[in-house]
Amino acid sequence: MDLIKIMNDVRDGTIAPEEAAIMIRKEPFEDLGYAKVDHHRVLRQGVAEIIYGEGKTCEQILGIIEALRKDTACILITRLDREHALRIMDELQDAEYHETAGVCIVGHPPAPSGNGYIAVVSGGTSDARVAEEAALSAEALGNRVERVYDAGVAGLHRLLANLDTIMGAEVVIAVAGMEGALASVIGGLVAVPVIAVPTSVGYGASFEGLSALLTMLNSCANGISVVNIDNGFGAGYIAGMINHAGEPR
Amino acid sequence: MDLIKIMNDVRDGTIAPEEAAIMIRKEPFEDLGYAKVDHHRVLRQGVAEIIYGEGKTCEQILGIIEALRKDTACILITRLDREHALRIMDELQDAEYHETAGVCIVGHPPAPSGNGYIAVVSGGTSDARVAEEAALSAEALGNRVERVYDAGVAGLHRLLANLDTIMGAEVVIAVAGMEGALASVIGGLVAVPVIAVPTSVGYGASFEGLSALLTMLNSCANGISVVNIDNGFGAGYIAGMINHAGEPR
Amino acid sequence: MDLIKIMNDVRDGTIAPEEAAIMIRKEPFEDLGYAKVDHHRVLRQGVAEIIYGEGKTCEQILGIIEALRKDTACILITRLDREHALRIMDELQDAEYHETAGVCIVGHPPAPSGNGYIAVVSGGTSDARVAEEAALSAEALGNRVERVYDAGVAGLHRLLANLDTIMGAEVVIAVAGMEGALASVIGGLVAVPVIAVPTSVGYGASFEGLSALLTMLNSCANGISVVNIDNGFGAGYIAGMINHAGEPR
Amino acid sequence: MDLIKIMNDVRDGTIAPEEAAIMIRKEPFEDLGYAKVDHHRVLRQGVAEIIYGEGKTCEQILGIIEALRKDTACILITRLDREHALRIMDELQDAEYHETAGVCIVGHPPAPSGNGYIAVVSGGTSDARVAEEAALSAEALGNRVERVYDAGVAGLHRLLANLDTIMGAEVVIAVAGMEGALASVIGGLVAVPVIAVPTSVGYGASFEGLSALLTMLNSCANGISVVNIDNGFGAGYIAGMINHAGEPR
Amino acid sequence: MDLIKIMNDVRDGTIAPEEAAIMIRKEPFEDLGYAKVDHHRVLRQGVAEIIYGEGKTCEQILGIIEALRKDTACILITRLDREHALRIMDELQDAEYHETAGVCIVGHPPAPSGNGYIAVVSGGTSDARVAEEAALSAEALGNRVERVYDAGVAGLHRLLANLDTIMGAEVVIAVAGMEGALASVIGGLVAVPVIAVPTSVGYGASFEGLSALLTMLNSCANGISVVNIDNGFGAGYIAGMINHAGEPR
Amino acid sequence: MDLIKIMNDVRDGTIAPEEAAIMIRKEPFEDLGYAKVDHHRVLRQGVAEIIYGEGKTCEQILGIIEALRKDTACILITRLDREHALRIMDELQDAEYHETAGVCIVGHPPAPSGNGYIAVVSGGTSDARVAEEAALSAEALGNRVERVYDAGVAGLHRLLANLDTIMGAEVVIAVAGMEGALASVIGGLVAVPVIAVPTSVGYGASFEGLSALLTMLNSCANGISVVNIDNGFGAGYIAGMINHAGEPR
Amino acid sequence: MDLIKIMNDVRDGTIAPEEAAIMIRKEPFEDLGYAKVDHHRVLRQGVAEIIYGEGKTCEQILGIIEALRKDTACILITRLDREHALRIMDELQDAEYHETAGVCIVGHPPAPSGNGYIAVVSGGTSDARVAEEAALSAEALGNRVERVYDAGVAGLHRLLANLDTIMGAEVVIAVAGMEGALASVIGGLVAVPVIAVPTSVGYGASFEGLSALLTMLNSCANGISVVNIDNGFGAGYIAGMINHAGEPR
Amino acid sequence: MDLIKIMNDVRDGTIAPEEAAIMIRKEPFEDLGYAKVDHHRVLRQGVAEIIYGEGKTCEQILGIIEALRKDTACILITRLDREHALRIMDELQDAEYHETAGVCIVGHPPAPSGNGYIAVVSGGTSDARVAEEAALSAEALGNRVERVYDAGVAGLHRLLANLDTIMGAEVVIAVAGMEGALASVIGGLVAVPVIAVPTSVGYGASFEGLSALLTMLNSCANGISVVNIDNGFGAGYIAGMINHAGEPR
Repeated sequence: MDLIKIMNDVRDGTIAPEEAAIMIRKEPFEDLGYAKVDHHRVLRQGVAEIIYGEGKTCEQILGIIEALRKDTACILITRLDREHALRIMDELQDAEYHETAGVCIVGHPPAPSGNGYIAVVSGGTSDARVAEEAALSAEALGNRVERVYDAGVAGLHRLLANLDTIMGAEVVIAVAGMEGALASVIGGLVAVPVIAVPTSVGYGASFEGLSALLTMLNSCANGISVVNIDNGFGAGYIAGMINHAGEPR
Repeated sequence: MDLIKIMNDVRDGTIAPEEAAIMIRKEPFEDLGYAKVDHHRVLRQGVAEIIYGEGKTCEQILGIIEALRKDTACILITRLDREHALRIMDELQDAEYHETAGVCIVGHPPAPSGNGYIAVVSGGTSDARVAEEAALSAEALGNRVERVYDAGVAGLHRLLANLDTIMGAEVVIAVAGMEGALASVIGGLVAVPVIAVPTSVGYGASFEGLSALLTMLNSCANGISVVNIDNGFGAGYIAGMINHAGEPR
Repeated sequence: MDLIKIMNDVRDGTIAPEEAAIMIRKEPFEDLGYAKVDHHRVLRQGVAEIIYGEGKTCEQILGIIEALRKDTACILITRLDREHALRIMDELQDAEYHETAGVCIVGHPPAPSGNGYIAVVSGGTSDARVAEEAALSAEALGNRVERVYDAGVAGLHRLLANLDTIMGAEVVIAVAGMEGALASVIGGLVAVPVIAVPTSVGYGASFEGLSALLTMLNSCANGISVVNIDNGFGAGYIAGMINHAGEPR
Repeated sequence: MDLIKIMNDVRDGTIAPEEAAIMIRKEPFEDLGYAKVDHHRVLRQGVAEIIYGEGKTCEQILGIIEALRKDTACILITRLDREHALRIMDELQDAEYHETAGVCIVGHPPAPSGNGYIAVVSGGTSDARVAEEAALSAEALGNRVERVYDAGVAGLHRLLANLDTIMGAEVVIAVAGMEGALASVIGGLVAVPVIAVPTSVGYGASFEGLSALLTMLNSCANGISVVNIDNGFGAGYIAGMINHAGEPR
Repeated sequence: MDLIKIMNDVRDGTIAPEEAAIMIRKEPFEDLGYAKVDHHRVLRQGVAEIIYGEGKTCEQILGIIEALRKDTACILITRLDREHALRIMDELQDAEYHETAGVCIVGHPPAPSGNGYIAVVSGGTSDARVAEEAALSAEALGNRVERVYDAGVAGLHRLLANLDTIMGAEVVIAVAGMEGALASVIGGLVAVPVIAVPTSVGYGASFEGLSALLTMLNSCANGISVVNIDNGFGAGYIAGMINHAGEPR
Repeated sequence: MDLIKIMNDVRDGTIAPEEAAIMIRKEPFEDLGYAKVDHHRVLRQGVAEIIYGEGKTCEQILGIIEALRKDTACILITRLDREHALRIMDELQDAEYHETAGVCIVGHPPAPSGNGYIAVVSGGTSDARVAEEAALSAEALGNRVERVYDAGVAGLHRLLANLDTIMGAEVVIAVAGMEGALASVIGGLVAVPVIAVPTSVGYGASFEGLSALLTMLNSCANGISVVNIDNGFGAGYIAGMINHAGEPR
Repeated sequence: MDLIKIMNDVRDGTIAPEEAAIMIRKEPFEDLGYAKVDHHRVLRQGVAEIIYGEGKTCEQILGIIEALRKDTACILITRLDREHALRIMDELQDAEYHETAGVCIVGHPPAPSGNGYIAVVSGGTSDARVAEEAALSAEALGNRVERVYDAGVAGLHRLLANLDTIMGAEVVIAVAGMEGALASVIGGLVAVPVIAVPTSVGYGASFEGLSALLTMLNSCANGISVVNIDNGFGAGYIAGMINHAGEPR
Repeated sequence: MDLIKIMNDVRDGTIAPEEAAIMIRKEPFEDLGYAKVDHHRVLRQGVAEIIYGEGKTCEQILGIIEALRKDTACILITRLDREHALRIMDELQDAEYHETAGVCIVGHPPAPSGNGYIAVVSGGTSDARVAEEAALSAEALGNRVERVYDAGVAGLHRLLANLDTIMGAEVVIAVAGMEGALASVIGGLVAVPVIAVPTSVGYGASFEGLSALLTMLNSCANGISVVNIDNGFGAGYIAGMINHAGEPR
């Protein structure tokens, strides 16, 4: 919001004072009753509103999509189960569902851009859901993604076999449950930021992701920061930001 | 390590097989008895060995500095108390101590480079130690830093008064104890990565930083990742990486 | 209980000593077998017995309503699911069910009174259940309520767009899950009491409301007190008390 | 901030557009280097800046007092130890230290006003520090306070002996460590808001106030809200707000 | 086991040395494959094996009952759901199911004996399951029980109305969820042991009984000891022991 | 308080009605300023006020002792350090300090009475402080005590060697830190109540007594109830009650 | 990997340098898309890949089995429910399902070898699932196993009756939920390593195995180490390693 | 204890029946007042009584040493500070203090025996105290030990440089604080048991070793079991047992 321009318009009589006050306070979003859709957000933050699917009805999701379409060519719906996805794909021809990740993409993801690519590394087979959510989110936000899955530290040679891919990335997303040591090992190997995603995979004293979360926060390796348990989207989003760092805004 | 070159040297007889095996396994670090100093790390990760001062004697710290000097022009010692700092400054003419942050810088920080600047925003007066550790670390690693301190969300207008500085940064470090809401508010305003640092400042149910840590992990705003409680250095390090993202490595 | 009057009656022979002893110890409630209904409570605390619906059968709820009707014109049933509500509405013509909140109101809420109005502000779409429970409870207890929903701190401008409504209230109820920062931001803006309600909305390290609870307890802003996780009714009740503060009792 | 008035001034030429933009964004606080003193806060929130003494030097505290004096007749310093207090009293003739509470009051508290009085009830001898902090804070903010100390639920008759004082208050502050049951018992007796303050008094499974905190949050009695462990000031502040509820702002 | 008698028998030749060694080490229980039934336990501890019903099949429960019948006239099955109970009552004519408590009693409870009676006091309607488990267990072990239910501290007069019953008991069982303050209040009133049973009733920060458990452990009142969350049987068992204290064993 | 007698006195004119009302509400305690001493408590609960020494000055302790002396021949001061104890023994000739337990006994403990004796069993050398606090408390309250120390389950034969003493008691106090398994083992051996006292002895994952506390609460053995961590006095008090169970009150 | 041999082959021309580089970095596993099957692991760690059944489809499990068959004669599938097991047994003639343990064994377990036998001791009937998982795992890995079930410390004589079996083992696995004291008691009796397995069996303050876990970690007995809650397989695996200790690798 | 021999002696008249009963129950330990020294333990468990030094006076330690000397040639005192150690070395000529580990060894450690050697691997400089306690304990119990210190996973190449030492061991002790990932990485590389020791080294969300403890318990690698936080001795003891596995007992 360019305050000085508005002030000049007021002085010039182009805008009435009351109008200016309203402009400054005006709600830059559309009210659908069940959610406020923020049209300015695309401009302000560079990407479309992401829809968190869990707990929303198909009607609500379709309503939000319709409102958002005015401003963006690609909408990402996370945490969407198969049943909801099928109904949304019935309604929208350009919707595509990725079941492993529980992610639906509406419209066309932008062509990959940015400084390089994002490596998404995951520890075990069961971490795939979160890892794919991260990878698809990053792709939908205009990034090239390289996947290195099932490469946990308990089988270190698997990880080392993919060293070139990991070490060539602009930013690495490390997804792991159980002991979460993957982030530390990667952090010790690469010279780029590592976004660590603890997952709730595990049993017993994993305490639904708490163990992996603490491990990642306490890593001795430099360059690691952490997002919430199972927050694949969040990691993809941040990694995308970093991959596009240095671009004019 | 260029394996194919080593292999060629073996085939050519330039290197004996045993020697090659040793090269591959050889320790790329110097053993001081009390610590292994890693000379390759500067090359491998782009910065000097950072010395974590807590729990080390002055003699140990001076020994590590001497060993590291061969490879780097600037060494950062974190978590150093006044007493240790005075003795180190007695020995080293180019050591400078920043008491608020508990940080000592030996040698000359590089001129600021990178895509832009890093904004370090802190919530309350008592968060200054961690915020300064982050700011000095980032500067020592070759970044321009803008400080916005004492701007917690309980006095929102103070934060809004510095919006331009915050919104113009390449990456923002948000340092806050108590309720830790600062990261969420900033995350909702900017379009760049936010590194959140919970601090152990507070009392009662702040549980020595746990409250702030959980708040930051659960932020609804996009683009926020979190480091360990009081880990100002870690935040400065990651922010520096992001500010230099896109540069050739 | 006017002890001196009872004593005088004993002295005057109007009441036998044994009778007086019984009067002092007598149970001021009606025993339904499954619950003790407290007829004196309306007088003693100014409002009707609120029925906590969870875990009670329809028959039990109807029995309690019948017993309470003697003393009050409006009964509030919280945490009532749709199935139970339909059966109760079949029996009672003046029962109305609010599905979002899971609240059933029997009889006619009193006309709004008090010093002003209560603002109920909620952070995200998913906090609506708790926010509506708070709002309906406050209305049933004779208060005017203004609702500001989906105004979380991650989109700060949404909150600022409703500043006038929030700042004009006698008391504000701030409902938020995830990071719970909403209470702090509001507490920094208004000069009236803020009742903070953490909700169990969230995932991962939100630990079913613990994160929001700790955030709210640790707020640096003055004037904030906290109720139990998801306790919308409790917040509405206290806010009603405060809105009627200063009235003769 | 009256936006429409500023807009009118711009239209009338009384204020230049640039000046108006600056006014809107201008920092309404004074920068002392170590803290930002907020002169508008007295107006905006009705009371003076409270100084949290812990971790500040005498010089810092005296500097903040000097800056605040322009706007307020009474300043409250909490969590101040004896040594700091003596030095401050040496400098300021109108400073008075209350050692039990660790509170220093500079200037003259306003005459008591409000709808009635605040009752501060504490459970055990060791809760006195927090209870006095609450009582003195409320007095400094212009409230009459009645104290009922050492009246824990383990000796219920002590509490009942003071029923008249407790039941006559406009708002009750219940301060208790260990099991924290005091708030529930009072909440069941009175018809006014109860502000519960858990204290860190106790040992073993009291976990430094956590036990009392949980007890108070889970109270079955209506009308209870909770502040942070040991936060006597916070409780006194809120109670003062409630005691003055209904007054024109 | 009378070692000296066995030794004498060995010396006298009544028992062979090998046989004596076996006697000393011999298993005093019957092996059913799925459980070891301990025939000596009735003698050793004064009561029958209690069967913890949860997770056992009807066949297993019936098998254990059959094995135990040799030694005892009354068997108590706790945590038994309705379905299992119906099938057991089909098989055993003298089995009786108490649905509220989830307890089945097989055989005839002994006539009440002991020094006096046990008072079982519960806080809210929802604590009835645990309170009844305690009461029935105590009765099955030969104790007179007086019940005082729905008498939580939030309605203190309800509790006081039953003071005579509570104060006349040999031992009191206090059952409460949520804030668990009931035990403290009773402990302050009576001069006999109080067995406190926290229940998992509640929501939010009750953390499934943890809040009530901590409250009870931290009680300032003397004479209170605590059993596991929801452990009604354990409380009834201990109370029975205390009610029979001083009897010859 | 005999209400009917008071009523009769009112009817007979022996007591004025106002006087009767005062009698019913009158404070049955003496106010020393820093603590309310409860003269009726000795009668009501059968023992003297116990003084919790921690955090009290010598003057306060001596003042409370003086006030209590009117009603009791033996006063117990727990958690008293050596320095305080020496000063109290200077003032009071009949005070005796037990340093291991941190307990001071003023006056003459009553001759042992009750149904039998109390066995105090402790796990390790470091649990001695809490075990002695329990033993001395029980003795001061008129019980015979047998001590079995340093008999943890890790050396099971030590425990078994004292079986006769343990199995002959009316009630057993089991004191243990670290893993706290002692209570379970004893509970499986004896047919009398076991009061379990977790201690804060240990390191690492003992979490200052939490581990032992949980172990004891979860014991599979019947007849075990638990007091707060390190609460030796509480255990001695309850054990004394049980040892005197069945006596006329 | 014998680096010197590879180097010699390079020098001798047997292997091309590029080939050697590939060999060193080459992935020693087969990619099935959903899982990377590690053929070298049998050699490297002495046993077959264990399949963790939970969360895998029958197709995935069958695919992994097929891939693994090339290298091993016996495959163990843990955490497999009945439904999945039936379908796998339909496909594979040499698959056998052990329902109590939820374990399926494909192929023929090797004949028992090692230094002696492994004793698996469990506390209660409900710990059987985990105990059997441990026992079957150990057997499948070539060990003789002796089972001592339902021998918890609350009935100490049951445990003592099996002393000979327990004391004769090379290593003991102690499986227990609730209070977990079993490991300490066994650790105090035997002179061999004890692997403690906490189980999630219990209720209330057992917190799904946390209580047993802490107890076992804090054991005062020497020779005890602990695996994750419910991790029967892990315990069997380690015990097998220890039973085969001293063998040439 | 050979029961059959004792029985035969009874039958033969060599031992009187009463004497036999006493023998069976007799205390096999010496009572020093402050500790029970267990002379049979050396035989029963194969090693001397270890003295846990923390919280014991020099006199107590010297007394225990004197009593133990009768049975063993080497005594280990752990957690002994420098001051105590100096005084003990004054008294005992064959005592040697290892300051880093806080361990004092009295007498001559046995010559190394066992199947092979134990590798002790530690993560960071600050883990040295615990690692040395483990190493010295293992040596004192008759094992050869190889140390690999300062080899955390954040610098993976340091660990890989010592692969031969680590992979050649009979058992590995992995000591690490902070994120504790070291155990997983080693567990994935070796085919022998790994004893993991979490240390309390770290800050913030390391929660004094809890983070490392959880990581190690949740390791995906097979063959890892865990001891208490900072329990170096325990790890050394178990490792020694495993290194001697298969020997005749």
